[in-house]
Amino acid sequence: MSQRNLTLLTDLYELTMMQGYFKEKDANETVIFDVFYRSNPGGNGYAICAGLEQVIEYVNELHFDQEDVDYLKSTGLFEEDFLEYLHHFKFSGDIYAIPEGTVIFPREPLVKVIAPIMEAQLIETALLNIINHQSLIATKAARVVFAAAGDGVMEFGLRRAQGPDAGIYGARAAMIAGCIGTSNVLAGKMFHVPVRGTHAHSWIMSFPDELTAFRNYAKLYPTACILLVDTYDTLKSGVPNAIKVFKEMREAGIPLTTYGIRLDSGDLAYLSKKAKKMLDEAGFTDAVISASNDLDETLINSLKIQGATINSWGVGTNLITSKDCPSFGGVYKLAAILDKKTDQFIPKIKLSENAEKITNPGNKAIKRIYSRETGKIIADLICLDGETFKENHSLLLFDPIETWKKTHLAPNSYTMRDLLVQIFKDGKCIYDTPAVMDIQSYCKKELDTLWDESRRLVNPHEVHVDLSNELWHMKNQLLESYHFRD
Amino acid sequence: MSQRNLTLLTDLYELTMMQGYFKEKDANETVIFDVFYRSNPGGNGYAICAGLEQVIEYVNELHFDQEDVDYLKSTGLFEEDFLEYLHHFKFSGDIYAIPEGTVIFPREPLVKVIAPIMEAQLIETALLNIINHQSLIATKAARVVFAAAGDGVMEFGLRRAQGPDAGIYGARAAMIAGCIGTSNVLAGKMFHVPVRGTHAHSWIMSFPDELTAFRNYAKLYPTACILLVDTYDTLKSGVPNAIKVFKEMREAGIPLTTYGIRLDSGDLAYLSKKAKKMLDEAGFTDAVISASNDLDETLINSLKIQGATINSWGVGTNLITSKDCPSFGGVYKLAAILDKKTDQFIPKIKLSENAEKITNPGNKAIKRIYSRETGKIIADLICLDGETFKENHSLLLFDPIETWKKTHLAPNSYTMRDLLVQIFKDGKCIYDTPAVMDIQSYCKKELDTLWDESRRLVNPHEVHVDLSNELWHMKNQLLESYHFRD
Repeated sequence: MSQRNLTLLTDLYELTMMQGYFKEKDANETVIFDVFYRSNPGGNGYAICAGLEQVIEYVNELHFDQEDVDYLKSTGLFEEDFLEYLHHFKFSGDIYAIPEGTVIFPREPLVKVIAPIMEAQLIETALLNIINHQSLIATKAARVVFAAAGDGVMEFGLRRAQGPDAGIYGARAAMIAGCIGTSNVLAGKMFHVPVRGTHAHSWIMSFPDELTAFRNYAKLYPTACILLVDTYDTLKSGVPNAIKVFKEMREAGIPLTTYGIRLDSGDLAYLSKKAKKMLDEAGFTDAVISASNDLDETLINSLKIQGATINSWGVGTNLITSKDCPSFGGVYKLAAILDKKTDQFIPKIKLSENAEKITNPGNKAIKRIYSRETGKIIADLICLDGETFKENHSLLLFDPIETWKKTHLAPNSYTMRDLLVQIFKDGKCIYDTPAVMDIQSYCKKELDTLWDESRRLVNPHEVHVDLSNELWHMKNQLLESYHFRD
Repeated sequence: MSQRNLTLLTDLYELTMMQGYFKEKDANETVIFDVFYRSNPGGNGYAICAGLEQVIEYVNELHFDQEDVDYLKSTGLFEEDFLEYLHHFKFSGDIYAIPEGTVIFPREPLVKVIAPIMEAQLIETALLNIINHQSLIATKAARVVFAAAGDGVMEFGLRRAQGPDAGIYGARAAMIAGCIGTSNVLAGKMFHVPVRGTHAHSWIMSFPDELTAFRNYAKLYPTACILLVDTYDTLKSGVPNAIKVFKEMREAGIPLTTYGIRLDSGDLAYLSKKAKKMLDEAGFTDAVISASNDLDETLINSLKIQGATINSWGVGTNLITSKDCPSFGGVYKLAAILDKKTDQFIPKIKLSENAEKITNPGNKAIKRIYSRETGKIIADLICLDGETFKENHSLLLFDPIETWKKTHLAPNSYTMRDLLVQIFKDGKCIYDTPAVMDIQSYCKKELDTLWDESRRLVNPHEVHVDLSNELWHMKNQLLESYHFRD
């Protein structure tokens, strides 16, 4: 992101509203906007947040070039004084966010922007674009990795990704969520993550025959010798030729470290079992049997149940596009406006006939509550910033809609941590983004704080996201002040 | 694309294969690769190809920087002589392609690369990434525009796009297929396409009340005054307040040019009819009633059937991600290798148990056959490059699998044109890409060459894609030379 000026990567209405604030309001009015989402993608029991590093790069680079200003002028929508303001535009606010790789749940503020209204408005679109994309792919990848149950999953989707960035940042998100490598070389270079790959059908087809193609590949890459066996006929040609080459290597005294076959078509359950038998009989019991071909978490799960002998998974299209659910519904909503006279935030609410769509007003924080005994998440508590809770006191949690559903936590039975971390202070980034592989380690630990019941692929148990008593009362007071039912 | 070095935007195996060709083969062996796809996305009857301009930029910029080479060296996979070769790498081949905005069908070579094998192999991944993405979105947008039946469709999806490029190039593709504008300002600047937008709920919420927010907006943007009416209560607050503001404008003598309301939630059929009645009664019969909120071609179609009075459509998530089918299955397959001795291309074929997945071998061309009477497409004919057909001769077409299905064309009853155009010659681009709005005009004419039966949203008539007699015989000879059934 840092090489490109993405300042105009925004919806036009952000700019027309900015000009409106500039002309009609105190443009420096401080406001709070929250990024949050309403339901987990693909029926999952949680999401993984990702994209913060690119948000930071984007905010750091925000500026209107002369050619940006000239372009905006050419639209005829903007006046000179506003364009002059844009010339000197710089983000000067505070941003809080949940660190990348964290397990997150619906309705929690993932990012909280506290800034002059014009600045906060401008960054809406790009923030959502970046966070929606990477959180989507990280969440999908976590499902696929879960289905693989300890086998390595490689991200192979670049050619089907929705443009270069979708491939690059999708690979980043997939690595965060636990993939062991990506085929995407540029992502490997940019994020210092392992790159993987072998050869395509074209390699086989470019030689006079399959055996010659395999021999040449083995000669060049003896230590990572995964041979693609389905160009002509998997069991009659591909696997026997692969075994022939492995035997030649063994006879020549070449150590067989990482070696095996890749299946890319046909009945993967049947072919993998047959191939495993042939490899075993030839003494190649530790050969890798990798598979690709439109895989996703459901297919991997099904293949495992069928007893497929695959132990390495290359997942492309369905992962990199999150095919069954290709968007993450993150939104950006006004939560409060600072009253300059009192220096207090006035909470703001967006109504809807659907209770789930009503926003949570005010300047908020999120406490994650863990069982002291198991280390697993009990619930998340959205509260007002500054509210304090003591772990040696009992805690009463209640469902924010069906309030009679309550949970009592005994003193010292739980621990709490704050999820939001300050990222920008007065326009300056004060946060060091960890390396992607470190985020991956953190994410693995995060996933361990979920009960298995919340990780399963179908009908997962929903983790409670409650409101503090104080926030709940404030929200209900605001709701009472409006009428919207006939 | 031109600002970024995307040379490493490739799967690792392209590079390991390149090194293989470099070491084990004549690296300058000339080959032909075809880009094609196997089925239309989302059950559509056709696709729209897009992305060629970005492919051209990518190929023009191809080069390995010192830091690219250093990175590849650091993987431990590549040897000095190959890395030295990469230092001097430049694309030197020929590329043919179907121009952007053209209606296309499965199995047709959209792009044909004739180049030294190492060069042709490298560019596979990026070519597919770019063409798959933009063709996907252009095809989806064509469906949405078709459903809108003459109403304007605006692309509003940036915040839900899969990363910045998906937003930028997705907007480009949507414009090609007939959207009248995009909310994406950067896309507007880059591609000289109209940008559109009004205001968000946050605009309304940042003022003490809705009426004040509307008045301020109308004051600033009197000539494009579309007011968002669903922040508090659409029919009780939003629409009455909008009408109040339009009346004030009328009374003040401000010309009402483009003005109206935007509905963004609730029952759009019901609300639009009620709002239309209220606007009509106040004398605002020509007010725009625009709608957004998770729209797609099916919903638009349904709303029209229900008699919704919406006449302007903002389509976001479902368009920019092609939600029901978020990937376009373009593949890149070896079709021929040049025999240096004879200077003839030796055709290559990839087998599969599924007849649809068997590739078409050889150096090919595509003839599009139109009815002379109606101007509509009769069929496409994939043939060998250099084959000639005379429009004043009769022509026999036949289904390449069920060969007894035949079509006889009488002399002079049809016209033909070649779909593939030369884009690169000896590594130099010899093609001028039209402006996006010119591609849009071309695309509109292209869509007019389809029968309505092929454009309908559900169960469209499939346009025939046949093989010439010569190509069919060559393919079957190659097939006969392999065995692959028990």
